[in-house]
Amino acid sequence: MMRSKLMNLVPRAVATTSRQMSTATKLTTVQVDDKTGIATLTMNRPPVNGLNLELLRDIHQSIEEIEGNKSRGIILTSSNPTIFSAGLDIFEMYKPDKERIRAFWTALQDVWLALYGSSVPTAAAINGHSPAGGCLLATSCEYRVMLPKYTIGLNETKLGIVAPKWFMSTFESVLPRRLAERALNQGRMFTTEEALAVGLVDEVANSKEEAIAKCAQFIGTFAKVNPLARALTKQQLRAEELRQLEDERVQDLEKFIFFVNQPAVQKGLGIYLESLKKKATK
Amino acid sequence: MMRSKLMNLVPRAVATTSRQMSTATKLTTVQVDDKTGIATLTMNRPPVNGLNLELLRDIHQSIEEIEGNKSRGIILTSSNPTIFSAGLDIFEMYKPDKERIRAFWTALQDVWLALYGSSVPTAAAINGHSPAGGCLLATSCEYRVMLPKYTIGLNETKLGIVAPKWFMSTFESVLPRRLAERALNQGRMFTTEEALAVGLVDEVANSKEEAIAKCAQFIGTFAKVNPLARALTKQQLRAEELRQLEDERVQDLEKFIFFVNQPAVQKGLGIYLESLKKKATK
Amino acid sequence: MMRSKLMNLVPRAVATTSRQMSTATKLTTVQVDDKTGIATLTMNRPPVNGLNLELLRDIHQSIEEIEGNKSRGIILTSSNPTIFSAGLDIFEMYKPDKERIRAFWTALQDVWLALYGSSVPTAAAINGHSPAGGCLLATSCEYRVMLPKYTIGLNETKLGIVAPKWFMSTFESVLPRRLAERALNQGRMFTTEEALAVGLVDEVANSKEEAIAKCAQFIGTFAKVNPLARALTKQQLRAEELRQLEDERVQDLEKFIFFVNQPAVQKGLGIYLESLKKKATK
Repeated sequence: MMRSKLMNLVPRAVATTSRQMSTATKLTTVQVDDKTGIATLTMNRPPVNGLNLELLRDIHQSIEEIEGNKSRGIILTSSNPTIFSAGLDIFEMYKPDKERIRAFWTALQDVWLALYGSSVPTAAAINGHSPAGGCLLATSCEYRVMLPKYTIGLNETKLGIVAPKWFMSTFESVLPRRLAERALNQGRMFTTEEALAVGLVDEVANSKEEAIAKCAQFIGTFAKVNPLARALTKQQLRAEELRQLEDERVQDLEKFIFFVNQPAVQKGLGIYLESLKKKATK
Repeated sequence: MMRSKLMNLVPRAVATTSRQMSTATKLTTVQVDDKTGIATLTMNRPPVNGLNLELLRDIHQSIEEIEGNKSRGIILTSSNPTIFSAGLDIFEMYKPDKERIRAFWTALQDVWLALYGSSVPTAAAINGHSPAGGCLLATSCEYRVMLPKYTIGLNETKLGIVAPKWFMSTFESVLPRRLAERALNQGRMFTTEEALAVGLVDEVANSKEEAIAKCAQFIGTFAKVNPLARALTKQQLRAEELRQLEDERVQDLEKFIFFVNQPAVQKGLGIYLESLKKKATK
Repeated sequence: MMRSKLMNLVPRAVATTSRQMSTATKLTTVQVDDKTGIATLTMNRPPVNGLNLELLRDIHQSIEEIEGNKSRGIILTSSNPTIFSAGLDIFEMYKPDKERIRAFWTALQDVWLALYGSSVPTAAAINGHSPAGGCLLATSCEYRVMLPKYTIGLNETKLGIVAPKWFMSTFESVLPRRLAERALNQGRMFTTEEALAVGLVDEVANSKEEAIAKCAQFIGTFAKVNPLARALTKQQLRAEELRQLEDERVQDLEKFIFFVNQPAVQKGLGIYLESLKKKATK
């Protein structure tokens, strides 16, 4: 909050050397194009943008910063050339620290509430694979442009995990119920082409630059729209899902804590981490 | 109610000179085809069928009349050659009279409750542009046939207004959630062709006569259906949306009154009216 | 329950002469393919698989048996070469016995709760016509494969009946709202081709064997999915509809009893039965 207030004191045109200005936390970058007024929020946590406590807090802070700096919209993307976000960082859930795991889940709730409920137009430039939590971030935006040959989906059931209700309702707000249910049960990962066919993504672009340009074009469709009326309209449309989590934040946290501490879940995560290590050493 | 009771005393075959009978209030016409038993409800308030208090009351009364005269269905259309309805009459909202504005909004609620909840089959022959309130009327019907080269949509955000929840739920009952949300945020007007592609209208016709014939054909699909079972089925399917407004009529009215009296809204309406005047004098 | 416990004591490989094992109640057959672990539940009540009290109880018992015997999934089909199920047996509703009619409706509720809420993957091999209650069973499954030249739909309004809310919500979980509402109002029966086009069925097969193979293929998509995570995911997705009936079982029963005893409904059923007799004697 401090940061975003300071930012507002700096006139936009002055703050940029080229046509962009930028603030960086450790794990995210925010660049506001002063021509279009659109902010690009880049996730930058090598190697795979695993959503750990720090990255989630930085994403949350960046969204609040953008909301505060009067940007015209948010484009969410990744600095990684092949991965948008690999989803929740499994190291946060495997043999978790009692305090940290609570902060981690709370930060995830904060990110979703801020992104799904954002008052400005939001779009995802999906420049790489986007499983699980990565898909949650992308589907929380209003528009999705994806690069070819990647995959996206909520594959929780394949990892032996159950996605929380708000992951599911976000997914169901994009896909028809019949397809959403089937994909969630299957833990299905869609290729870019499949995602386009069912409407899980809206457009395909051949480069990150083109993806960002198409996202900017979508945000541009609101140029002649009253921003306050737009924000209130979006809020009203998403009120039910937002209120549901707001009302059940504590129960949702306790449910996750209980679940993640089940021996079977811990065992499953252990096996999964072992398989990742083997892959890495090949 | 009085009128519709009197009507029922007149045998249908006798009352018509040609094959149609007709009752007219000042701003609507009801013609019942005595061959098909289908009532055509025509909005007739020059120049653009702006929905003011009187037109809304006449539409409401006409729907009740049709429900009472045992018609087989309702076809809603316009006497204007290029406009179905331009939506809510802005003169009702700009510098409003304290009593009249309440009666106006209440009449709009009445029309929607009667049309969306109508026990008989309903279809709209959309023979002209259909923005905002015009789109609400069309989407409250069960079927839509539209003429080419017109536009339809809930463009409230472009006017700096927020559509009430029941406008949105009506719209969402026709379009997939993802498309409905985006269009509502954008205040998007769909061309006839675009509306057909996404399912916002069901058919395109090349003339008003053809549109009415196609609406009659749709209503004809219920010929072998038990009318009471049909009415109860429709009621059950639409119960949630209807109940929501019925439960919140007072709050919905107060919310509108509060909103419309905001200085920013009044200013916006003033600017809009000024731009209409300039257009008219060109 | 007894039966299914006994079954579990018999090692699967030993219990089969060919590659299938089978238990049969009077009106259903359950065959578990010991290669795939998938159970085929066949309705077998000549002449048309009319859902009477006994068939419903046998279907319910068979589902519970399959859930208990650790099968990998359920394929629901019919032994009749041209009819999947003709729906609720009208003889249960025409001049009903006071006790039996309550048991009948309760058994129908049990079947739906067990099938719609089943923890294992479910698919319907629709090898014949599937009106009303037959369509309910098919749409309660997660996947549908249908043979050509048959029809499927909830045609209650054509019979002067109103489908209960849970029939409708099951139907709406498969079709887009706009199409579901229209079809329910019309009592529309879809041909196989029409059903495929709107997504009411997922695939077409040219023989019962092929339909069952395609259902098995669908169930096979869960091979690498954690069964518990899958069951909890499905349960969460279907929780609202399931809870609604569970919460309103008694009211739903009383509503049906009241409705079925209306003179107009009894008269309608009588006329319908008379027409069936005439058809049969032609």
